[in-house]
Amino acid sequence: MQVTEIDWSETEKEVAKTAFDRAYAREIDALILEVRSFSSAIAQIEDMWRLHDFLSARRHEIDGKYDYRYSALIFVFAGLLKDGWLHLEELEGLDADKLKKVAALARM
Amino acid sequence: MQVTEIDWSETEKEVAKTAFDRAYAREIDALILEVRSFSSAIAQIEDMWRLHDFLSARRHEIDGKYDYRYSALIFVFAGLLKDGWLHLEELEGLDADKLKKVAALARM
Repeated sequence: MQVTEIDWSETEKEVAKTAFDRAYAREIDALILEVRSFSSAIAQIEDMWRLHDFLSARRHEIDGKYDYRYSALIFVFAGLLKDGWLHLEELEGLDADKLKKVAALARM
Repeated sequence: MQVTEIDWSETEKEVAKTAFDRAYAREIDALILEVRSFSSAIAQIEDMWRLHDFLSARRHEIDGKYDYRYSALIFVFAGLLKDGWLHLEELEGLDADKLKKVAALARM
């Protein structure tokens, strides 16, 4: 299942980069809204430390998740699909085999 | 300079507790306002991680600073005075020697 850089055509790289950036922007935008709304409701110190814990967890998760190595992209896209940050149609242009793998992994 | 619990009269303990809680409440209230205002201005991910770094630092600082051991209180009060979270008059009721130490440390 290992997919390295040479397995990606130039067109596929473009499709992948666009889809990756789009999912990232969506997730970050949603997170910013969530943090703003969370913050506006902070009334006591426990709420503030809860926000801190929340940000720690999300930062760690996002840093690990958006991994643009070609060997990881299939799994990354499957995860993004599963979590709703990306739609399968946005990966159109990847070869059929990759799309099949992404879709199958996303259903797991 | 070590001051242990037996060096604090009941009245002094009450004064100390009230002053301590008041300073804590002030600092936390100010911090909550700061975090809310910071959050409302978050526009991109770097701002969010900056908020996270800020919260990490403040949490660590506050956890360490508000140390209600009688052996630490003179230093704690001096720091709170220095940072403006407490006024010397709010420590009235402590014995003259303690007040002198607090005031002297706060000027350092």
